[in-house]
Amino acid sequence: MTTLPASSKTCVMCDLPVFQRGSKDYRWIADLAVSTAILASREQFYRGYTLLVLNQHATELFQLEPNIREQFMEDANRLAQALDKTFKPLKMNYCLLGNVLPHLHWHLIPRRETDPDPKWPVWGFPFPETQVSEDEFRQMAKDIRANL
Amino acid sequence: MTTLPASSKTCVMCDLPVFQRGSKDYRWIADLAVSTAILASREQFYRGYTLLVLNQHATELFQLEPNIREQFMEDANRLAQALDKTFKPLKMNYCLLGNVLPHLHWHLIPRRETDPDPKWPVWGFPFPETQVSEDEFRQMAKDIRANL
Repeated sequence: MTTLPASSKTCVMCDLPVFQRGSKDYRWIADLAVSTAILASREQFYRGYTLLVLNQHATELFQLEPNIREQFMEDANRLAQALDKTFKPLKMNYCLLGNVLPHLHWHLIPRRETDPDPKWPVWGFPFPETQVSEDEFRQMAKDIRANL
Repeated sequence: MTTLPASSKTCVMCDLPVFQRGSKDYRWIADLAVSTAILASREQFYRGYTLLVLNQHATELFQLEPNIREQFMEDANRLAQALDKTFKPLKMNYCLLGNVLPHLHWHLIPRRETDPDPKWPVWGFPFPETQVSEDEFRQMAKDIRANL
């Protein structure tokens, strides 16, 4: 466990129930070895956009014990493969950023030929918020889980 | 080794000497376990922006043999730590995209408070091409190498 950045007293990803193991949130997909998979709330314009949040607080990969890092990487790989099976995208994108929330989490994004710009990362322009109902979220999470 | 996408007869990252093991290019940083580290050519507005190219052709992490994938992930971790030591950024960003060149390669990007928008991924807006001489590239690569 590493120290939180001086700029924050608490960490949103440590504190919010949705990011925690055993979450009952409708966006919850699965508890993996050392991380928790949930569907992103506001990014479903890219259908299947998933976050994989590490179950302990750290901001950089190299702060982790090697065995935890290895499991975190394998969790991401396993989830990416499940997303690939579920959505059959053109390409998967895998990003660890943490510029806003410096708690290690993967952005796993299925990319499609129908994207506004399939060649560019999704952050090139603002994309519309897509309304997804709780039932749709639950079904999508169930479909992904079935492919894990 | 996986099949190349139908859209390309050859793969730029497989073919260009700069992306190959033992490259003598002035942007070459190091040969790691299963990948080759080079400084990005046109992205040095984000000083230290580095690419880590897998030494075999594959487009998705889950196509790799587990031991190769583990080594590729550890190569990225080791290089990110060296970049952190060299540039002391606010945060490292780690991305596997491949939307343009579908050959597995990490984008490892040191992020700083002085970035135009430190909270957003670097692809949010066009950034100026920054002139870096061959000597500067060589020195930067040497500094990173010393921290590996």
